Amino acid sequence: MIVVHHPDQALHDPEFVFRMGQFLPQPDRAERYHIFLREARKHASRVVEAPLGDLEPVLAVHDEDYVRFFETVWERWRAVPGAGPEVIPSVHPTHRMRRRPKDLLGELGWYSNSTSCPIGEGSFAAARASAASAVHAADLVLERQGPVYALCRPPGHHAYRDLMSGVCFFNNAAIAAERLARRLGRVAIIDIDVHHGNGTQDIFWERGDILFASLHVDPDYGPPYYAGYAGETGEGAGRGLTLNMPLPVGTGDAAYLAALDHVLGRVRQFAPGAVVVSAGLDASAHDPVQTFKLSNDGFATIAGRIVSLALPTLLVQEGGYLNPNLAACLGAFLNGFED
Amino acid sequence: MIVVHHPDQALHDPEFVFRMGQFLPQPDRAERYHIFLREARKHASRVVEAPLGDLEPVLAVHDEDYVRFFETVWERWRAVPGAGPEVIPSVHPTHRMRRRPKDLLGELGWYSNSTSCPIGEGSFAAARASAASAVHAADLVLERQGPVYALCRPPGHHAYRDLMSGVCFFNNAAIAAERLARRLGRVAIIDIDVHHGNGTQDIFWERGDILFASLHVDPDYGPPYYAGYAGETGEGAGRGLTLNMPLPVGTGDAAYLAALDHVLGRVRQFAPGAVVVSAGLDASAHDPVQTFKLSNDGFATIAGRIVSLALPTLLVQEGGYLNPNLAACLGAFLNGFED
Repeated sequence: MIVVHHPDQALHDPEFVFRMGQFLPQPDRAERYHIFLREARKHASRVVEAPLGDLEPVLAVHDEDYVRFFETVWERWRAVPGAGPEVIPSVHPTHRMRRRPKDLLGELGWYSNSTSCPIGEGSFAAARASAASAVHAADLVLERQGPVYALCRPPGHHAYRDLMSGVCFFNNAAIAAERLARRLGRVAIIDIDVHHGNGTQDIFWERGDILFASLHVDPDYGPPYYAGYAGETGEGAGRGLTLNMPLPVGTGDAAYLAALDHVLGRVRQFAPGAVVVSAGLDASAHDPVQTFKLSNDGFATIAGRIVSLALPTLLVQEGGYLNPNLAACLGAFLNGFED
Repeated sequence: MIVVHHPDQALHDPEFVFRMGQFLPQPDRAERYHIFLREARKHASRVVEAPLGDLEPVLAVHDEDYVRFFETVWERWRAVPGAGPEVIPSVHPTHRMRRRPKDLLGELGWYSNSTSCPIGEGSFAAARASAASAVHAADLVLERQGPVYALCRPPGHHAYRDLMSGVCFFNNAAIAAERLARRLGRVAIIDIDVHHGNGTQDIFWERGDILFASLHVDPDYGPPYYAGYAGETGEGAGRGLTLNMPLPVGTGDAAYLAALDHVLGRVRQFAPGAVVVSAGLDASAHDPVQTFKLSNDGFATIAGRIVSLALPTLLVQEGGYLNPNLAACLGAFLNGFED
């Protein structure tokens, strides 16, 4: 197991998230980076600090105007007299609101859909380092040096081409999958984060070369709410290449693994050249989101079944939030990929 | 001048609005109702407390599922342990997010697009009383007892059929216009609030019997941001019946009145049976939104020019926020409608 990371990931450290009408503790603290790295080292044959490189791999997935907005918004925000300590949107375009305005708050709402992506001084640098880790990990997979674990934080799977969403800015898994697909032709993404990977789904919605399969809480009852339903299966060249497995709140190991087997069957049928795992750990029974009830053994079993695909494999860290079991959960999962 | 109001309008009194990453003082305090009523009495031949009636006139404009959601959301919210003191959304559907979820936060985001519509215990009752005031005022206009001033608070023109937005819940002006159009055939709405009446525009977007004309700050540089551009002119039967006059920040009396004359020419051409004025006062130079520079004399002149249309006229209060000149501004405007 090769571990790829970058210390700039810790530069993003929002203290709060605005939810249920108030500021609540932010789940995606920088401490996650340190916990993941410490645990991953125990399972690593090699630990690599990713080169930051340029933004080309990010721009292969994200719109340039979005990337430039994200890069500059903090400076614009801090220039507003009396602005709050973190960039948080307050209005968004929905119903027949089709034009991007020039105003800061208007543009911010155009490129986001929630209050859960607070931006501070180091957020862009951290997101860039997170994406760079996924990119370098993908390159190692292409060199057949797998499996590779990309420690990515902030996570990415809720980010759309031009939208920050759900604590995500750049879609690390999508960036890696795009990079792999350009060389390998076909790539499968298996998203095991407890929340639907709506950004990833949307990015590859019409793509014939990328299978996106996700196991997640029924969006009727959990974030991201507006996508991830079973009826969403892709369009155009991507028709049939989105596979959503919404599962009820409280899902435990047995039901989860049965759904995973269905997903793995579809992946085998697709016969990709590599698999990218959006490796959220928040389906754990110990996670503060308290949604699914997976055990650490469950995560080890998930790992084993993914290994059974016998495909070049890239693990991209997604969610999984501060709790006393977080490191052990990651350890159980990574351990499943070792010989 | 007949004045219509209802004291339940004061039951909605949010303390804060979430904007620029923090809680700021709410512009739409209940005190506005008392200030408007006190001033309007000075100009009234008669002051009428509107009958609350049933919701049929509201449902003629708003979707029933939206109305029922608004009616019940406070009870659902307060039942969530640790919820904040007011209902405020944190996530909204944008990019290909097309399904309404069952979860409270998900549904709340479905029916709203901003953090500016905090809901408390009395909000639904207040919005209902505000709409009822517009309805009763419309009925008085139909009896040729005009001009009539509907003291409506909370305001309405940002509310869509199924969307609360920009401190608005029920679109009072649209509800009144719908009621008038059913009897009179053709109705014109002139929206002089400093912000575009995006909800009203959307509600009548495809209607051939209602002309919607709005003077407002260029949405590139002010709320509601995503609508109100000059190129938006209606569709279907409503093609050409939306007229947007975006004006720059800092617009004063002369430029405003020139734009108003253009609007009034279009209204005359349309030859409606009545005119509804979305009478925001926030284009005043004294308003805390600090956007346009209209004087009180400017408001008196606006009134005089609307009077020159010689049409049955209904004034519906929209924005205009707490400042020492607020009552005087309303007074100057209402005075312009007296003989």
